[in-house]
Amino acid sequence: MKRSFIREILEHTNNNTISFAGGLPNAKLFPIEQLKKSAQVVLDDTSSLQYGNSTGYEKLKEKIAKLYSDDGFFTTSSNILITSGSQQALDIISRFNSNKNITIETLSYLGAMNVFNLNNMDINTINLQDDGCDIKQFKQSISKTKLAYIIPDFQNPTGISYSDKKREQIASIIKDTNSLVIEDSPYSEIYFEKKFESISQKIPKNSYHLGSFSKVLAPSLRIGWIRADEKLLEPLIAYKEAMDLHTNGLSQFILNNYLEDINEFENHKNKIRKIYSKKMQIFCNFLDEVLPQFEYIKPKGGMFVYGRLEGINTKELVNKCLKDDVLFVPGVEFYINNIKEDEIRFNFTNSTPAQIFKGLNIIKSLIKE
Amino acid sequence: MKRSFIREILEHTNNNTISFAGGLPNAKLFPIEQLKKSAQVVLDDTSSLQYGNSTGYEKLKEKIAKLYSDDGFFTTSSNILITSGSQQALDIISRFNSNKNITIETLSYLGAMNVFNLNNMDINTINLQDDGCDIKQFKQSISKTKLAYIIPDFQNPTGISYSDKKREQIASIIKDTNSLVIEDSPYSEIYFEKKFESISQKIPKNSYHLGSFSKVLAPSLRIGWIRADEKLLEPLIAYKEAMDLHTNGLSQFILNNYLEDINEFENHKNKIRKIYSKKMQIFCNFLDEVLPQFEYIKPKGGMFVYGRLEGINTKELVNKCLKDDVLFVPGVEFYINNIKEDEIRFNFTNSTPAQIFKGLNIIKSLIKE
Repeated sequence: MKRSFIREILEHTNNNTISFAGGLPNAKLFPIEQLKKSAQVVLDDTSSLQYGNSTGYEKLKEKIAKLYSDDGFFTTSSNILITSGSQQALDIISRFNSNKNITIETLSYLGAMNVFNLNNMDINTINLQDDGCDIKQFKQSISKTKLAYIIPDFQNPTGISYSDKKREQIASIIKDTNSLVIEDSPYSEIYFEKKFESISQKIPKNSYHLGSFSKVLAPSLRIGWIRADEKLLEPLIAYKEAMDLHTNGLSQFILNNYLEDINEFENHKNKIRKIYSKKMQIFCNFLDEVLPQFEYIKPKGGMFVYGRLEGINTKELVNKCLKDDVLFVPGVEFYINNIKEDEIRFNFTNSTPAQIFKGLNIIKSLIKE
Repeated sequence: MKRSFIREILEHTNNNTISFAGGLPNAKLFPIEQLKKSAQVVLDDTSSLQYGNSTGYEKLKEKIAKLYSDDGFFTTSSNILITSGSQQALDIISRFNSNKNITIETLSYLGAMNVFNLNNMDINTINLQDDGCDIKQFKQSISKTKLAYIIPDFQNPTGISYSDKKREQIASIIKDTNSLVIEDSPYSEIYFEKKFESISQKIPKNSYHLGSFSKVLAPSLRIGWIRADEKLLEPLIAYKEAMDLHTNGLSQFILNNYLEDINEFENHKNKIRKIYSKKMQIFCNFLDEVLPQFEYIKPKGGMFVYGRLEGINTKELVNKCLKDDVLFVPGVEFYINNIKEDEIRFNFTNSTPAQIFKGLNIIKSLIKE
């Protein structure tokens, strides 16, 4: 099995590295004082350190359910399975569906593709357009595979979001073909204009909706979840249990305590949206100035700008950049087939304007070499 | 897939339940003040909340390696892979060895058997004797399977420990047959008389040694590890990464900080040994008094007393006990074949003397019904 390019290079970065590579949230925005306070409170109770339930800490499940219900997507704690990050959520679902077929977007999240391969799934790819996947291809593919994995909000790596129309179409097709969709939503809360309504909300009995606190709060806590109909969730519990008994209890208790002040969480998300939106704007301005040949569509949320440096082999380019402590992810990493060699995914959340300017100029100089 | 009896009943206990079931450490012994202090210190540094390396936090790996080296088993951080509890360690190794054969003890740890089944392994069982497994059977079995899973120290569920002689024999056989052993050691530090030398130490190139902080420190932190030769560890990293990216960072940082005061950790372990030893003695005294027909061997460490109530179907018994809020695990749960229906595993670490007395008397009264 191949390791992820992103995870491997993460292990070779140092304090001088300018990284546009990983989907790292900006550490300066972690609500560290509040989490510290929560840690103190929950560590007054020994149950925060004891074994817990395989499905997750009940109070946290209730709070996550309430976040959905408040958004108009009726959900109770029995619809929630807490996982060790949404990476594990993907593993649990695909392990349960091992040896089956799955429809995914081209390009797609590397960690998902790894897990589908690990579970010996037969992957069928469909094209992405500027407003979501190719509906005709989706219909053809899902009719056969009966299971799809998509990232409709600020997709990783492309930054693309599905239009409202395509969301309706996808939901109808899933329902009509009696299929299931895994809707991965790590970036949904990081919108710069508006929040999209999930596809899962339209088809609650045919969907696994994956959420995570990694991008909006803190990744090291490794708390993600699956929101699904109880009937879909039930067979997954034995898998979760066999895989790691239960998700980290201390993190669950801390997050539960943190979420008790829902205004604090809302303010925090608003702050992130504002700052990331500004960072995206700065990144795009520098891109236009320093690398005007880079073709891209400005994202409406999330953490990435994806585009094309016509005719440049970006895998070769990143290997040169590595030596000068600049990193990005070449597009080839996100393809299974029909690989395009001149594409790049830039992360814009984790660098200062000075780093962006310096980093892009280093890339520019190495293109010319 | 079947869920674990223990995990399922754990979800049905309440504050009045007298539980001799799970392998729950005694919450009163968690070093909660020290962990609280550590949480405060590490939350001054945002890296405790950021994404981390798939193999684990380097400083923590170094500290775990040092614990081995100090015990005379030379180990560096590159021999350590941090996992989300040793349950995940078992899953990673058996996933890498999926569809292969494995030799295990009869009886064995339920969570391990679940994971071997999940990974479609063909399980071959060998008998346990009072001083470890049947060596003749072990030799025959491992010659075919080339991989074994054993728990030599205060075995779960039987409480049995391997003699020094059998440890030497097992190591020789593993080496001579060019096989591998997964040595699971969650209870090794909870000894009442002496610490056993691991089998892995005798065959460092042929062993995966699994350790955990769940039993000696706090289970909710979900920090376990695999200690193995680099060549054995290397292919596992891609699995770990695909499964959950990396283990909870905050827990790793907290434990790393806690372990900086190694005397504190040593004192804590000594305290646990002393108190659990006393609890075991009390439990056995009450057993002899209340249920004199219960046949067992007094354990020399760990968390369990295992034995036999001749002629009693203990699965039926526990279902009656459940209604009176008393729990234990019937032996049948730990068997794959040749099931004995009149055996029980009692956990002795998590109840007060009054609870033990009351609980055993309830069991006694329900036996007579």
